[in-house]
Amino acid sequence: MATVTTFTAGVAGASGYAGLELQRLLAAHPAIAPAVLQARSGGYDPIDEVALGGCDAVFLCLPHGASRDLGERLAAAGTRVVDLGSDFRVAGWTYGLPEIHREQVRAARCVANPGCYATAAILALEPLATAGLIDGPVAIDGKSGVSGAGKEPSAKSHLPDVHGGVTPYSPTGHRHIAEIEQETGTTVTFTPHLLPTSRGLLVTAYVRLTDPRVDLDALYRARYASEPFVTVVAAPAPQRLAGSNAVHVAAWRDDRTGMAIVAAALDNLVKGAAGQAIQNANLMLGLDEGLGLTAAGLWP
Amino acid sequence: MATVTTFTAGVAGASGYAGLELQRLLAAHPAIAPAVLQARSGGYDPIDEVALGGCDAVFLCLPHGASRDLGERLAAAGTRVVDLGSDFRVAGWTYGLPEIHREQVRAARCVANPGCYATAAILALEPLATAGLIDGPVAIDGKSGVSGAGKEPSAKSHLPDVHGGVTPYSPTGHRHIAEIEQETGTTVTFTPHLLPTSRGLLVTAYVRLTDPRVDLDALYRARYASEPFVTVVAAPAPQRLAGSNAVHVAAWRDDRTGMAIVAAALDNLVKGAAGQAIQNANLMLGLDEGLGLTAAGLWP
Amino acid sequence: MATVTTFTAGVAGASGYAGLELQRLLAAHPAIAPAVLQARSGGYDPIDEVALGGCDAVFLCLPHGASRDLGERLAAAGTRVVDLGSDFRVAGWTYGLPEIHREQVRAARCVANPGCYATAAILALEPLATAGLIDGPVAIDGKSGVSGAGKEPSAKSHLPDVHGGVTPYSPTGHRHIAEIEQETGTTVTFTPHLLPTSRGLLVTAYVRLTDPRVDLDALYRARYASEPFVTVVAAPAPQRLAGSNAVHVAAWRDDRTGMAIVAAALDNLVKGAAGQAIQNANLMLGLDEGLGLTAAGLWP
Amino acid sequence: MATVTTFTAGVAGASGYAGLELQRLLAAHPAIAPAVLQARSGGYDPIDEVALGGCDAVFLCLPHGASRDLGERLAAAGTRVVDLGSDFRVAGWTYGLPEIHREQVRAARCVANPGCYATAAILALEPLATAGLIDGPVAIDGKSGVSGAGKEPSAKSHLPDVHGGVTPYSPTGHRHIAEIEQETGTTVTFTPHLLPTSRGLLVTAYVRLTDPRVDLDALYRARYASEPFVTVVAAPAPQRLAGSNAVHVAAWRDDRTGMAIVAAALDNLVKGAAGQAIQNANLMLGLDEGLGLTAAGLWP
Repeated sequence: MATVTTFTAGVAGASGYAGLELQRLLAAHPAIAPAVLQARSGGYDPIDEVALGGCDAVFLCLPHGASRDLGERLAAAGTRVVDLGSDFRVAGWTYGLPEIHREQVRAARCVANPGCYATAAILALEPLATAGLIDGPVAIDGKSGVSGAGKEPSAKSHLPDVHGGVTPYSPTGHRHIAEIEQETGTTVTFTPHLLPTSRGLLVTAYVRLTDPRVDLDALYRARYASEPFVTVVAAPAPQRLAGSNAVHVAAWRDDRTGMAIVAAALDNLVKGAAGQAIQNANLMLGLDEGLGLTAAGLWP
Repeated sequence: MATVTTFTAGVAGASGYAGLELQRLLAAHPAIAPAVLQARSGGYDPIDEVALGGCDAVFLCLPHGASRDLGERLAAAGTRVVDLGSDFRVAGWTYGLPEIHREQVRAARCVANPGCYATAAILALEPLATAGLIDGPVAIDGKSGVSGAGKEPSAKSHLPDVHGGVTPYSPTGHRHIAEIEQETGTTVTFTPHLLPTSRGLLVTAYVRLTDPRVDLDALYRARYASEPFVTVVAAPAPQRLAGSNAVHVAAWRDDRTGMAIVAAALDNLVKGAAGQAIQNANLMLGLDEGLGLTAAGLWP
Repeated sequence: MATVTTFTAGVAGASGYAGLELQRLLAAHPAIAPAVLQARSGGYDPIDEVALGGCDAVFLCLPHGASRDLGERLAAAGTRVVDLGSDFRVAGWTYGLPEIHREQVRAARCVANPGCYATAAILALEPLATAGLIDGPVAIDGKSGVSGAGKEPSAKSHLPDVHGGVTPYSPTGHRHIAEIEQETGTTVTFTPHLLPTSRGLLVTAYVRLTDPRVDLDALYRARYASEPFVTVVAAPAPQRLAGSNAVHVAAWRDDRTGMAIVAAALDNLVKGAAGQAIQNANLMLGLDEGLGLTAAGLWP
Repeated sequence: MATVTTFTAGVAGASGYAGLELQRLLAAHPAIAPAVLQARSGGYDPIDEVALGGCDAVFLCLPHGASRDLGERLAAAGTRVVDLGSDFRVAGWTYGLPEIHREQVRAARCVANPGCYATAAILALEPLATAGLIDGPVAIDGKSGVSGAGKEPSAKSHLPDVHGGVTPYSPTGHRHIAEIEQETGTTVTFTPHLLPTSRGLLVTAYVRLTDPRVDLDALYRARYASEPFVTVVAAPAPQRLAGSNAVHVAAWRDDRTGMAIVAAALDNLVKGAAGQAIQNANLMLGLDEGLGLTAAGLWP
């Protein structure tokens, strides 16, 4: 509570949904002040590397592909950087999933924040992967609200197109597959679907088990018992987690087929983007990992 | 167009969603008149076997488990019956999926109408199953609006619980699994999810292929070319099919993993219930299979 | 049923939501065939006045302001035209609200199809206006799904902006006000609101009554008893009317304040656009007014 | 920040939506600890007057009509009580709308928390009422998500009934009318509508002005300039305010009719219930009014 040190943060790309969510979360953060807000539009200051370089930590919320140069220059200058884009995730910077790489993040100055789908998928699969229980490839069915498609009106976010149903897209080749495979060591088929909602994400993974007698509930409860943001629940549902950094997970064993079904729910803009970025920054700055991230989901 | 013969139909269970949908569809049917409407509530006449027995065809829209006695008596009396419940689906009456059992349905007097999820799943898998391409078990991810849970308010249909997200339920052991396995000859893991919408259903099936070089698009287009209600499309989405008896299917091959992803969309109350029941009745009565079922989906 | 004569229709602007809805309805119309489909995009033939002029009736579904020239030329050539835009509604062509101007429409060759909000508002107010019961101005609160904003993605239809709430816009000065005042003879304040849905429209009108003892229910039931598409109900709700040409109306008297509350619900793309256009064309062609428009609302 | 004193709070009725929202907000409150949680169901301790009486403040979240006895006994014993029900709102306890009765709330030990619709309606009308600008009666059109109908599944919250549209109910005689009239001194016609969403409320009030030249924007900005929770905006929309205690207001003048349109948006479970209750408790306990209530709305 009585935090003395206050750090300054810079946000490059403050006008998009991830940038706005960072501002919302930092406004309630007791030890990181959003000192520099920059964007190409929306009335913010323009992107200015010097101002960013003066911050204790910089969050890059730029379109995919637009972070590389700025990120490398800030990194070279020794600035702590969390990149919310995909440029540095695979074979790049420290992969900022604290539940997997907590100590590396603590020691890192450059962190690649995972994709929203990847966060859910990796946390869903990691206990099985670590225990050698996966007879791959794995099938992952992703479902997400359309806020992930960004602030600009597009076919993906046009209400008459997505309302009243569910829409598969990118059935193979989604950008997050490489991250998931890198972190789980298994190959995956991943097919995302647009939900008729704004926020919230669920992955349901279907895994053939190498040992059909494993006690999945015990395995997952043991693995995540000490994780502050991951909870094993009866039925993960993202509508319970709006605005929260929590992940809800459940794993079921289908004795008829020897498959595991693992569901993981989260808020795509919080644990899937801005919240996880702050979780990483907290670790990089030596702060308590959960600082500013304790809000419960807004439900109903 | 110039249909001379008009048949009479009876509906037992006219007050529920399937019964209401039957009434909506029969009101526009040129050759079947809804002559007898019965239900336990809603101001309809009470269930009366004699009146039903006088109809050319009877639709049973009763709760699961409540059709058996009435169905068997009507069958014994020689009345043509389509049961929309699950009592006669497995090792029971002729399984009323015309795309698979058209000739049997034409010859039958007692038909078990398939479950909504089963209809989509079987049509998604049948081309692969018939071609011997399935290295089972198969994982099927189901997604449906909440109208399938019926007319009575319940936790499944309580808007604050389902709005703004997606909810897995019955991760193993759903009632439709037995039908799917009976018709496809493969074992399946099937996990349904509630969508924050009323009508519409999508299944996404994940299949390991025995032959990873198969041309899935060609296979599906050939299989369904002459089917009046099944169309291969780029991206099946149930919001395009509201009120229609159509099924939209797509199959994609993931070359990285050797898996097929097959998506099938339909309206759970039409092709998943009342529309398919009429399709079966049309066949049983010697009518054109698509009579009264030609409406396009209501979209946007 | 046994319609011998078949008329041909042309649609200019077939690719927008009104044009698509016209195609959906004409596909089931027994006496009007959609012979000519033209649009500036979507793979249709380009707008061609000659081809349109050869049709028995032409529907103009062009953006507001774009119908004037083409409409006037077709009218000059003697072609029957229904314009779904706003160019000819006020002090222009015959105002195509059959419940008010049935005989004029029957005799007309050029008809201006009313706005969606105007249709609901005028039908809500007409019985009071005709009876001299309105102590104006009237306050009209409009609520509509976003399909009215068209097929192109925009801020109005961006799901994250409209989901989970309701949004007032154009609080004064909406385009439909002039039509409403022209037809009801009273001044109105009209404020529309975007609903988080695609289709469906409700207006709730608040009227100070000149006679606070009037029996509103009797007045409305008498007025609309013989209207095929207007029904007095207990609680109008547009979700019951999807895809239907029906209008549901209710009028309540608030004895505490001497005000009438009148609610009118409809499908903005059917009775608010394409369905009413066909209703007008049926009259102009000497057909039964309701031909092709008998479908019940798709509910649930 | 450095709050030394910590008060204890009791919640009677912790299992309902208002009770759950109080728990969510108190979990982040720096000076009020939720010490006693009681309910008739949900695994909470049963209602126990003695335990409640030991708290610095008690929140009653019981069904309408169920607070009276318990409330009176707690009041007689000198306990500070905020009743979230309707039992004490009219001619009863101090009416807990701080923007109107701040000093009375500060001095009170028993406060009746306003209804959700009443909060929005009164804040919408008060500037006009105080300035004598209302030529009554006023028409108020209310729109709310279904969470206001509570946690138990009912027809009002059954998704297939409310999805895809908007539903008027209680067109005259809603419970909140008496509060609105008591606080504004004008008579009102108030008609609420159910939105197809969970959380969020908007009222749109239509007022004949006694002076059609008044500068409404200036009037509202002056009135609410120093109010921490009320902001004049361009277009109030409750989806921007989820989880926040804020009220967004806009007033427009319709020069054609001499009417004012005033819209006010809020979160029905926060400023419309639990948040406002905490705002009142803060005042009653001598704390800063906004303590624990500074969260911005969760958007998108």
